[in-house]
Amino acid sequence: MNTIRTIALQAKEAAYQLSTASGAARSKALNAMAGELASVKDELFEANRQDIEAAKAAGCTDAFLKRLAVNDKIFEYMAKRLREAAALPDPVGRVLIGRTMPSGLKVSKIAVPLGVVGIIYEARPNVTTDASAVALKSGNAVILKGGSESIRSNRVLVKAMRKAILEAGLPENAVQFIDSADRGDVAELLKQEDCIDVLIPRGGKSLIRAISEGTRIPVIKHYDGICHQYVSAHADLEMALRIVVNSKTERVEVCNALETLLVDAQVATDFLPMLAQEFKRLGVELRGCEKVRAILPDAVPATEEDWDTEYLAPILSVKVVSGPDEAIAHITKHGSGHTDGIVTNDLAESRAFVSRVDSASVLVNASTRLSGGGDYGMGAVVGISTGKLHVRGPVGPEELCTCKWVAEGNGQLR
Amino acid sequence: MNTIRTIALQAKEAAYQLSTASGAARSKALNAMAGELASVKDELFEANRQDIEAAKAAGCTDAFLKRLAVNDKIFEYMAKRLREAAALPDPVGRVLIGRTMPSGLKVSKIAVPLGVVGIIYEARPNVTTDASAVALKSGNAVILKGGSESIRSNRVLVKAMRKAILEAGLPENAVQFIDSADRGDVAELLKQEDCIDVLIPRGGKSLIRAISEGTRIPVIKHYDGICHQYVSAHADLEMALRIVVNSKTERVEVCNALETLLVDAQVATDFLPMLAQEFKRLGVELRGCEKVRAILPDAVPATEEDWDTEYLAPILSVKVVSGPDEAIAHITKHGSGHTDGIVTNDLAESRAFVSRVDSASVLVNASTRLSGGGDYGMGAVVGISTGKLHVRGPVGPEELCTCKWVAEGNGQLR
Repeated sequence: MNTIRTIALQAKEAAYQLSTASGAARSKALNAMAGELASVKDELFEANRQDIEAAKAAGCTDAFLKRLAVNDKIFEYMAKRLREAAALPDPVGRVLIGRTMPSGLKVSKIAVPLGVVGIIYEARPNVTTDASAVALKSGNAVILKGGSESIRSNRVLVKAMRKAILEAGLPENAVQFIDSADRGDVAELLKQEDCIDVLIPRGGKSLIRAISEGTRIPVIKHYDGICHQYVSAHADLEMALRIVVNSKTERVEVCNALETLLVDAQVATDFLPMLAQEFKRLGVELRGCEKVRAILPDAVPATEEDWDTEYLAPILSVKVVSGPDEAIAHITKHGSGHTDGIVTNDLAESRAFVSRVDSASVLVNASTRLSGGGDYGMGAVVGISTGKLHVRGPVGPEELCTCKWVAEGNGQLR
Repeated sequence: MNTIRTIALQAKEAAYQLSTASGAARSKALNAMAGELASVKDELFEANRQDIEAAKAAGCTDAFLKRLAVNDKIFEYMAKRLREAAALPDPVGRVLIGRTMPSGLKVSKIAVPLGVVGIIYEARPNVTTDASAVALKSGNAVILKGGSESIRSNRVLVKAMRKAILEAGLPENAVQFIDSADRGDVAELLKQEDCIDVLIPRGGKSLIRAISEGTRIPVIKHYDGICHQYVSAHADLEMALRIVVNSKTERVEVCNALETLLVDAQVATDFLPMLAQEFKRLGVELRGCEKVRAILPDAVPATEEDWDTEYLAPILSVKVVSGPDEAIAHITKHGSGHTDGIVTNDLAESRAFVSRVDSASVLVNASTRLSGGGDYGMGAVVGISTGKLHVRGPVGPEELCTCKWVAEGNGQLR
């Protein structure tokens, strides 16, 4: 097996070759990767079955096993993401700024690949292909370190992708995989600052924190999503109910699911009973402040801790607020800067909310579940950054680029 | 005196207020700051005289004293930079992406201020005003930590700027200054990760390294500039000479000054004697490889170390290369990714050089001294980043912004 150092050096070399490959060549490779997946489907499903068996034997939870499993739907989705990435416009070579200075110097700022991207993630095998799609689309080499529980599945996926890349005429080391369950390998990876340009950990808060603190390589962080909706005094309450239900229940275990609902005092008496009825039917537990419980005596009393909790479960904390100021103050104090929304028909109120809420995504009259790559028209993403530097929000191919300033003259001096 | 914690919290509060201030209000404050400088000119010059006296007594070098001194020219420049920043288009609120999705969801990506910027720098008092100009232009609050040798000068500058900001109706804590020579204060500053969004150290490599390693706050790094020019076989040698002379000698102590010259073997016999004559006149020492010394026996023999040295002095290392491949390989191995140029009249060669050299700025037929804010049409900058994430190259007001995704709907669900 390759040592981590060898893998890092190979990635740097592959990145250098990729940096001058055309967009057409990269798209060809992505389509070939999707095609090659089809021919290893049986092998993948068998490897995944073994992964699941081993994980069961190791006592992994059902939720974990669910994330680990590749079924037909997920398999189709993996290939689809690769083909979608192939079809996207090329993020490399975009002219971000172009101007001719009075001196005649032609100055342009051009998007170029970052270089080498390291992805450290947990169980889901689809991250293996999604991350490779985004990285290769943007001309980057990728080093994948998946969870040890999915190692058999990842081995099959990576072998197929590398074969396709090579056949398409690009360096197979554009995609590499740390084929080991040794935790020391991650520590070693974190030291390759001369080869790796950015690390993207995907997983729990503790994984992300451990990685950011253990490396000098820049890290794109995906911290938690304590997402809010504020139902204002000027909301259409029927629409608000649909939005809150969708935000909370369309999928509870994801980062852009709703965790805290803020209801304006002026509409609380009307809105909360509608909400309680619907969430009782859907099996969502409500945890309310005192004012909520005055209207909904069945709600569980919310503690201070509830306002800072990302449940990722069918639980919703609910607070009655006196108006937009209190709503925004609550979000500023307890939110995680991921995704927060308002339901209102008042223009000034919506503008103030958008301007004053400091989050990666701010929504007006829409489900929090829409914050992300696909619903923003971005295609495949490797996650949603809650950091402010380099990328905030969905991390797609454009976000895995840096720039190069090019200045062309005919003898200009200073 | 305020503790560092208080300063950090005040900056965060000021940033919050600034984030909703209009561009007109920020420009008004910047013009007021320039105006207020004029009224403290005598006070500033007296404080600067005391700073210089103390630095002399402490045995600082002449080069250091030169950087510390504020003369009429530098004073005018400080005020001018503030006014120029006021006149620039507003970087805040730029619509970076805007699209309506098939669902009717209107998605936009808007530039917003980063929040709080910490600048840690050495002697030059003009950084105090330049950095404040860039930060305030982009709606950020700034915490300044200048070198202790310039503390009296900075105290006058910051007092004047804060007075002007307050009179212009913005929070005076938009600009704060750590009025202490205590090194423990820097350590304390590095811990304020909940308040400070980015740190920009300006100074030597060791300062930058110490800061990046001592904090979890993201750092925009300005490492060294080992800048190259490659004089190709297809260069106009007269133009090449003008470009090389200007790149090396217009100002030797700055990061975009030329440090290593690569000359194509096909033109070395013609070009090197022209170069030697001109640099002898200008007092620049040449350190050459064996092939250079075969043509210029007077050149000092270059050691391996020379290729990795940023002289910041009237010394130039010179190497004869066999062609663009060797030139690019040398730059890849020894360059610092700051600014590298080619002099050529061959189109394919210039394109290959631009594509294959992985530097923040790549120049064709122009002086390396042109890489930077003003000559790229950017106005005031707080430095030139050699990192690849968030910003690469000049760091101006646009680069001190992050983004916010705004999605406006009428009940869209997932």
